Amino acid sequence: MTQGSTGGPAAHVPEETTVGIIGGGPAGLLLSRLLHRSGISSVVLESRDRSYAEQRQRAGMLEQTTVDVLRDCGAGARMDREGLVHDGIELRFDGRSQHIDFPTLAGGRRVTIYAQTEIVKDLISLQLSELSNGAPLLFDAEVHSVSGLTQGGEQATQETGSDSERPVLHYTYEGRRRTLRCDFVVGCDGSHGISRSALPASVARTYEREYPYSWLGILAEAPPSCDELIYAHSPRGFALHSMRSPSVSRLYLQVPNGTDPGEWPDERIWDELDARFALSDDQEWRINRGPITSKAVLPMRSSVTEPMRHGRLFLAGDAAHIVPPTGAKGLNLAVADVAVLARALDRYCTSGDTAALDSYSDDRLRRVWRAEHFSYFMTTTLHTSPDQSPFDTRLQLSQLDRIASSRAAATELAENYAGLALVD
Amino acid sequence: MTQGSTGGPAAHVPEETTVGIIGGGPAGLLLSRLLHRSGISSVVLESRDRSYAEQRQRAGMLEQTTVDVLRDCGAGARMDREGLVHDGIELRFDGRSQHIDFPTLAGGRRVTIYAQTEIVKDLISLQLSELSNGAPLLFDAEVHSVSGLTQGGEQATQETGSDSERPVLHYTYEGRRRTLRCDFVVGCDGSHGISRSALPASVARTYEREYPYSWLGILAEAPPSCDELIYAHSPRGFALHSMRSPSVSRLYLQVPNGTDPGEWPDERIWDELDARFALSDDQEWRINRGPITSKAVLPMRSSVTEPMRHGRLFLAGDAAHIVPPTGAKGLNLAVADVAVLARALDRYCTSGDTAALDSYSDDRLRRVWRAEHFSYFMTTTLHTSPDQSPFDTRLQLSQLDRIASSRAAATELAENYAGLALVD
Repeated sequence: MTQGSTGGPAAHVPEETTVGIIGGGPAGLLLSRLLHRSGISSVVLESRDRSYAEQRQRAGMLEQTTVDVLRDCGAGARMDREGLVHDGIELRFDGRSQHIDFPTLAGGRRVTIYAQTEIVKDLISLQLSELSNGAPLLFDAEVHSVSGLTQGGEQATQETGSDSERPVLHYTYEGRRRTLRCDFVVGCDGSHGISRSALPASVARTYEREYPYSWLGILAEAPPSCDELIYAHSPRGFALHSMRSPSVSRLYLQVPNGTDPGEWPDERIWDELDARFALSDDQEWRINRGPITSKAVLPMRSSVTEPMRHGRLFLAGDAAHIVPPTGAKGLNLAVADVAVLARALDRYCTSGDTAALDSYSDDRLRRVWRAEHFSYFMTTTLHTSPDQSPFDTRLQLSQLDRIASSRAAATELAENYAGLALVD
Repeated sequence: MTQGSTGGPAAHVPEETTVGIIGGGPAGLLLSRLLHRSGISSVVLESRDRSYAEQRQRAGMLEQTTVDVLRDCGAGARMDREGLVHDGIELRFDGRSQHIDFPTLAGGRRVTIYAQTEIVKDLISLQLSELSNGAPLLFDAEVHSVSGLTQGGEQATQETGSDSERPVLHYTYEGRRRTLRCDFVVGCDGSHGISRSALPASVARTYEREYPYSWLGILAEAPPSCDELIYAHSPRGFALHSMRSPSVSRLYLQVPNGTDPGEWPDERIWDELDARFALSDDQEWRINRGPITSKAVLPMRSSVTEPMRHGRLFLAGDAAHIVPPTGAKGLNLAVADVAVLARALDRYCTSGDTAALDSYSDDRLRRVWRAEHFSYFMTTTLHTSPDQSPFDTRLQLSQLDRIASSRAAATELAENYAGLALVD
């Protein structure tokens, strides 16, 4: 292990560390914190500034496991105060509604609504206040390349123990080009980051799927219209009722790809939400309206890069995989990736045992594909595809009716949604 | 109720009956038998000759409920002697195999392998030996049209009780055009029969889906290669191992639509079966070979006609719905249709209560769509589509891995495969 250098003007810019982390989103920040608690040094290099990192709007549904990991590493205080604990979700289809009860179906598991932006703020605040041995979190630090990965070639994917060349991160910070020598590099820099492209084309393969629709997402200053998330199947397209807090609603409408938010004045959005959430036996039910403070169109796509490790470079979170938002799996997968990786690094640093590092990619990919499949299932069961036939619609309604009437089908949904245990 | 006329040359050709049944496949024959046991007269008009009816190769997997219905009506003696009781199926994918245990997962339910052709023989034999009050089973009796359905117009779909005009079947038998006046007509004459087209276009809607692949099915004089059905997912396409008896194997290969069986000499079939069923940890495993006695290409399609009833005309079995064979649901749906309908007719004939007749279509359609969805699920999870991406293949493997490792997912498969109870 290498501790960040200290003293003098270079105090805040270490030249070596045990784990170099590219990306200061929730995955990178959480990994750094988990490693810190194991006494393993790390440096986080984030290409954007702090304010940008703290304001990226992302997901907000935390699986039980995600809540546990955040709480266990001391980052759960505000989440426990402000997060909204949910016992399930509501499915709406064919004019009726069905509650899916997670604690009953999925062994007591619950989910918590707490926005990713708030987790990032909590983790940044913790990182900057508690860690004084170096300067492990650098904003506006852009990594250009990773060297020292190639020795061992393709075989490196399978070998940790051999004391091959150590990887070096090349980056720019405060106007100067710098290097960071690492024992390991973890890429947490998202799907457009440099980490994924650092995997040689000869070993990496990316699997992708584009969905033929997008989401128009809004934030509104309106209390949630019900205590739970509502996933609505409608002949007019999918809609989702969610929330950020007791006074802020987060609402989504399926829209065609390429939709300009300008086509959707506020009134049209509210009317369309009411139409898609309509209930046969409660025709007075309406979505609570309020000032719309954000309006954006989000594409829906899936992507998985295999393997998630090459020699001493590991990928975690969006750098390795993207899911469509329907199953709310993106953030949860990222947290699980770094939780498993932190344990594996701890095991190696403590005992030299490489087994957990060596199985990281295979173990996580199995879970990643589970999440991809579940997200695909939720997406295709609830959305109306442009080329959808009346037969396809009947199949969707039969699937939803089955979930509403069969314990096995409801359990399969609940277990996947509330989240699987970190390891089998 | 009307008993078939007796005496004289017309003894075998009644002119009226309570239930006129179009089609002498398993649905029509079983319905006639169930009605007979309730003391309700019926006449079955089958357009083909007996030998043809007894030799149509069809399905052979009977759900527990189907077995119970056949046994309860006295048609189960040979099935109980010769049928093969199975406790589950084997899934093969990614070079490995997984047994899905039905009794454990689906409340003790089992399935029985007994060919549809044998059921038809058993039912014909019973019908001709036991029923002497009339001539209720006529072969080479082709129905041309159904009259007397239109009175009441669209409303007729919802009304049974009103003593509207009675329907009349117009048919040809022994070279003469004849009529059969009925209280009710049940169409059991398959997807190409006349019954479905007797529903006015203004009330009927048909939902369809074609699958982009077919099955090459063979019968071989070879003992089954294992005690259970094997559903195999392979990069080369789907394969199914089944059996007709302890000495006859029934095997299927996914092939492109439009395949000519002539492209598949026996040796190619056996080699391809071995390739698709290959196991990583048992490279010696092979399909038992033997003389191939039948070779045919079967299309894969789904079709559902709604409603399944118009006035005094009811549809049952393939006349109302077609499923692809992957879930083995076709025969079982037909048996469930007529079992439910026989009860409803009995209730009406006994007490004049129309409730069960009036809910027949809605109740059965819910189950029909469940079976359509399950068949779609099995089909699309196991087959390789011509435009399948590597991403899609990974999703299939993740679904299969989930079934192999999760009780909820395995239960959902087992309950649907072993079959739901006749009514909720």
